[in-house]
Order: sequence, then structure tokens, then C-alpha cells
Amino acid sequence: MKLTVKKEQLQKALQKVTNIIGSKSTLPVLGNVLFEAIGNKLILTTTDLEIRITTTIEAQVQREGKTTIPAKKISMLVSKFIDDEVFLDCNEKHHTDIVCGTANFKMLGLPDDDFPSPVDFAPIKSIKFKEMDFLRILDQISYAVSLDDSRKVLHGILCSIKDNTFTAVATDGKRLALVERVPEEFAGQEGDTIVPLKSAIELKRILEKDGNVTLEFGDKQARFRTEGVEIFTKLIEGNYPNYRQVIPAGFTKSIDIPVKTFIAKLELVSIALTDSSAFIKLKLANNKMEFLAASSNVGEGEDHIDIDYDDEMLDISFNPAFLADPFKHCDADKMMLKLNDSFSPVALESGDGFLYVIMPMRNR
Amino acid sequence: MKLTVKKEQLQKALQKVTNIIGSKSTLPVLGNVLFEAIGNKLILTTTDLEIRITTTIEAQVQREGKTTIPAKKISMLVSKFIDDEVFLDCNEKHHTDIVCGTANFKMLGLPDDDFPSPVDFAPIKSIKFKEMDFLRILDQISYAVSLDDSRKVLHGILCSIKDNTFTAVATDGKRLALVERVPEEFAGQEGDTIVPLKSAIELKRILEKDGNVTLEFGDKQARFRTEGVEIFTKLIEGNYPNYRQVIPAGFTKSIDIPVKTFIAKLELVSIALTDSSAFIKLKLANNKMEFLAASSNVGEGEDHIDIDYDDEMLDISFNPAFLADPFKHCDADKMMLKLNDSFSPVALESGDGFLYVIMPMRNR
Repeated sequence: MKLTVKKEQLQKALQKVTNIIGSKSTLPVLGNVLFEAIGNKLILTTTDLEIRITTTIEAQVQREGKTTIPAKKISMLVSKFIDDEVFLDCNEKHHTDIVCGTANFKMLGLPDDDFPSPVDFAPIKSIKFKEMDFLRILDQISYAVSLDDSRKVLHGILCSIKDNTFTAVATDGKRLALVERVPEEFAGQEGDTIVPLKSAIELKRILEKDGNVTLEFGDKQARFRTEGVEIFTKLIEGNYPNYRQVIPAGFTKSIDIPVKTFIAKLELVSIALTDSSAFIKLKLANNKMEFLAASSNVGEGEDHIDIDYDDEMLDISFNPAFLADPFKHCDADKMMLKLNDSFSPVALESGDGFLYVIMPMRNR
Repeated sequence: MKLTVKKEQLQKALQKVTNIIGSKSTLPVLGNVLFEAIGNKLILTTTDLEIRITTTIEAQVQREGKTTIPAKKISMLVSKFIDDEVFLDCNEKHHTDIVCGTANFKMLGLPDDDFPSPVDFAPIKSIKFKEMDFLRILDQISYAVSLDDSRKVLHGILCSIKDNTFTAVATDGKRLALVERVPEEFAGQEGDTIVPLKSAIELKRILEKDGNVTLEFGDKQARFRTEGVEIFTKLIEGNYPNYRQVIPAGFTKSIDIPVKTFIAKLELVSIALTDSSAFIKLKLANNKMEFLAASSNVGEGEDHIDIDYDDEMLDISFNPAFLADPFKHCDADKMMLKLNDSFSPVALESGDGFLYVIMPMRNR
């Protein structure tokens, strides 16, 4: 392998693929990036055996070939280079000469034969979104995934397609976040798949302002493709809980909430709390929402906002972090709070297909 | 205690005093800020029993008095407040009502009687510097203090005054950083004192662009004063090693080094190294300084800069972090590298009273 690439392109490509590399892999080659020079392309690949990320950049290839180079070190090196072009020349021992301006390195790699091969993949459905739209979907719900739960299926995001509508769901058993959206294109079989949170996070990292992302799902594998980047991931097997039964059939009360003011007051009043089992109480009456918090070692906090509500007086308590999450990931000015009483599940909606359901706390 | 203060002033004052508060003090009151309302002033004090920081701000005091309030919580609270004025009202149980705009808190404090009293202090010398100048001095040498060494005296910065010249020294036994500067004013006895690194770091935090700092030293205590802030600190007792004998009497070679380029090449080539015992080799010859580094698991790196040197060829090896430190804390364009051979101590000077002495490594 012998080639010249633009320094900036190589740096960006390395940033896209190296995030999944952990520091303590038992298989040394998993700490390396696979470099493949073919035609006028340089293909970079990394894997942690669950996820495999590949990106392709232009290169002036003088001699085709493959090798692997330690990911952390090559990334550090390229980010410190100051000239425009990087020259790579790998010998048969997988020692790669790396030259940029006056800087001259020799890096010890591992044979490309050691690098895991890609698995066979047969997609049974394909869904296309604008990259920005899908980024928004992931951002609106990812925080509700819990890796603590013993149920493996909850460690991922449910991606369901039915009647040309795509539904993404995340829940940790205490709250549920859901987005429904019509994709740009859909082909193949309807059905449910569960994407591991780690893969969703990697996908979020590569999504950009322009362009489309194609999500292809097989039985046990999925492939996500954007311009120049491909992510292969294992899927989580098993049946996702029936989330529809958690969503109340109707609500008797519905209140417009100003997003920024709400989160500011919620965070301020929560300072009176100490441990994570503490709750914040919302008191609704006379066109006012009061925030109340108290703990035995800090003291008490109280603030309020004006709302449009003159129904019966209502006290309702929440875990402050769970209540804050959807507001933190909302880019609308307002959310609609829907509820029936102090004890039944409460819903938050932002009018763009997003729905959040949370149980009130009873320890009031 | 009952008073009104400007929110911004209170926030700045809390930032100045709360940094020394650790999370795991055995004495609960050390986690609190002492509030004292006297005349038209609010005085805030914290201590970790080694250091005591006091700052004074203007306040409209309606009722004089004292209390203590948990530092972390009051800091969080004030930083989240959005209105201009904060109202504090403390009752006899040391519960303080804190009001800002519509936000209303009650914080549980501890009696001010529990808060440690200041120790008696009799200064025997007083030194005045411009705040910016003293900040520069601390920045140029603090990194050379090692808290790992078993010799307690090396855990601090030697502050010595003689013949109207102030000398600050830090060393970890492997390298030495020193600054000599003439202060704005000096009164009292000549002599040496050792200031704990932690106190120097706190002093750095409060030094600002304008104004003067007065350093007053007693036998076992020192007091550092700027506009509105006082730091009391214990001094480290014992005799500082005779650092003068480490500084070579003369040098046969002297080379101008461009600071930014040097540090860039040094950091780049060091990527070829892995562990902290590794060394980087400088090769001087033919008006060139080559940087060479190699390790058995990463590979080799090499780069160079042009210098003004046509003396004999010289190889000299250094711990790369120790070599980088003075360049990282240098605000001049050039440093002068002075040396005799590959084995004797090397000096770096920036022409403003700063001197750095480092031993070459022998494992070349």
C-alpha cells in the first residue's frame, strides 16, 4: 500500500471511525484501523465485533494494498500534522512510513488478515430519512434507554415500521419516549427491530446537516448508510414490551408549557434536593404552576410560572431528572402537558410526532 | 442577618472563596461559607484549616449578623438565579430565606460559632507586586512542584527575598524552575519562606488584570491581599534544598529556540512514545535541531527545526514532558537553550528573570 491523501480528509475520516475503539480490547487488532487502498480510494474500517464502521475517502494510490495501524496513535499524529498532504507507504512487515511536511514516522501495524471480515448481510427492509430528521428522532428519545435494566431488549431503540409510518421508541420501564414520523422512502417488509443504543449513538455522530441516511434491516443485522460512511451493527434479539398499553387512552386536562422557562425553574428548585430518589412537586391552580422541592439536609425551594389553567387544584410529583429530559431535548418553544389526575400517567407532546409518558411519584 | 446584595457580586464572591472546599471533610461546617453582615458589607469566608479565604462585597444590611450556608448549594443556586438582587434573611436557627425574583428558598445552615476562628498573624515582611506580574511568576514555575516527593519542603514554592530581589523556586528534584524579579515594594526582614502549592493555586485564581497583591509573611503563616480578597495560609516548615548548586556556573553553547515551533514538533514526535519513562532525543548539527523518538510498540518519529548552530554535533535526550513544560508556560517568542555537552545539566532562559534547569537522560 502506497498513497497520498489530503490531511484534512484523513483526519475527518479517522474521527468518524475511531470512536468505537475501546482502550481494553483482548484482541489487539481491534485497536487498529484497517486501511485499504483500492483504485483511487482509501477505505478505513474499525470494529468492536458488535459494530463495524467504514468510511471511504479519495486518495492518489501508487500501490494498492491493505494494512492496519493503531487507531489512537494515527489519529493523534494526523491531528498534529500541519501540512496539507499525508503520504503513507506500508511494507510487507506492516510497518507504515507516514510523512507530512518535514515530519517522518514509521508506525508498527498488524496484518490485515487478523482484522475481522464483514458478515453476510441480506436486508429485508429499507427506510430512507433526511439525515437531519433522523438525528432529531434519535436525539428526542435516546436518553430514555437504560442500560441498567436486566431486560436486554430495553438496551436498544425499537424501530418499527407499519402503514408507511416509522416509530422509534425508548423506555427504561419508568418513562417512555416515542417519535412517529413518515420516512422519505420505504421498501420491504413491515415489522419491528431493536437497535442497540451504542449503534444509535455512533449513527448520531456521523449524521450531518445535508444528505440522506438509508437504514437497512436484516434479521440479525442492520446497515446504516450516509454519503461516504457505512455502519454495520448487530440487532438486539427478543420481543419489545407492548408500549402501546402504557399510553393512556385520553386526558381530561391539557396545558401549554413554555419549554425554556419550565426547565430553568425545574433545575433551580431541584437544588433543594439531594438524592436521586427525591421528587419535585408541581402544584397547578389559578393559572399558575408552582414548583416545590424540599429535603431534610438542604431545605426548601419554591418558584412558579404562569400557565393557562383554571381547572381544579392539582398536586403532582415527579422524579426531576425524568421530568427534565424531554424538555432538554426539545427544540420547540412549547410542549403540551396532558394529564387526568395526580396518580395516572402523564403525557408530554411537542406536536411533531413526539410523545413522552411518565408516571407520577406517589411519595408526596 | 438580613440583607440585599447584587446577584452578580454575590456570584463572583462565591466563585472566589468556594474552590478550596472539598467534598469529604470530616467537619461539616467546613463545607459551608461563613456569611457576616456588618455595616454596609457582606463578608464571605471559607477554610480547609490550611487555607482561609475571605472576600468582602457591598450589601444593604437591614440587620447585622452571622451564619454559615452550604457552599455548593448556595453557589449553584445563585448561579441559576436570573434576577438582579438577592435577599437573604437568617433566623436564630440558622435557616436562611433566600429570595431572588419569584424564586424562594430556605437553606439550612450551621451556627457561625462552629466555624473556625482566624489565627493570630504577625507579619515580619511585606512584598508588593502588580497582580499580573505575580500571576506570571506563579504560572512560570508552579508546574515544577511535585506533591509525590517524600520531602515536604518540595510540596511548596520557595519565596525568597534578598537585596530587594524576590526569587521564586519550584523543583521536584529532576528539574528546577526559578524566577527572579524586583518587587514594587518591600519592607521587613530578608529570608526564605515556603508557600504550599495549593495556596499558590488559590492565589493564582484570584489575581486579576489590574491592581496589586501584597504578600505578607510571618513565621508560620502568610497573608496574601488583593482588592477585596484575603488568603491566609500555613507555610511549609523546614529548609529548602540549596538550589543554587544545581545551576551550572557556565555554558559553552547557547541556541535561540522558537517557542511555538519547538513545542509543536516536540509534541508531534513524542506520539511515537508510549510510557512516561521514554525519552526524546535532540540532535544538534549543521544549523538543524532534529527531534527523534522511538518505542518498540508504536514505532519511530522524526522531525526538525532550523536553528543557528554550527558547533560540534551533539545528541542529548530528555523526558519529553519535562522538556515541554517551560515552553508551554512561556509567553515570549524565543527561549535561550544553554548547554555544555550531552550529560551535564541544561538551562532554558526567557530573558525576563526566568531560568529552568533540567538534567539530560542517560538511557540513549
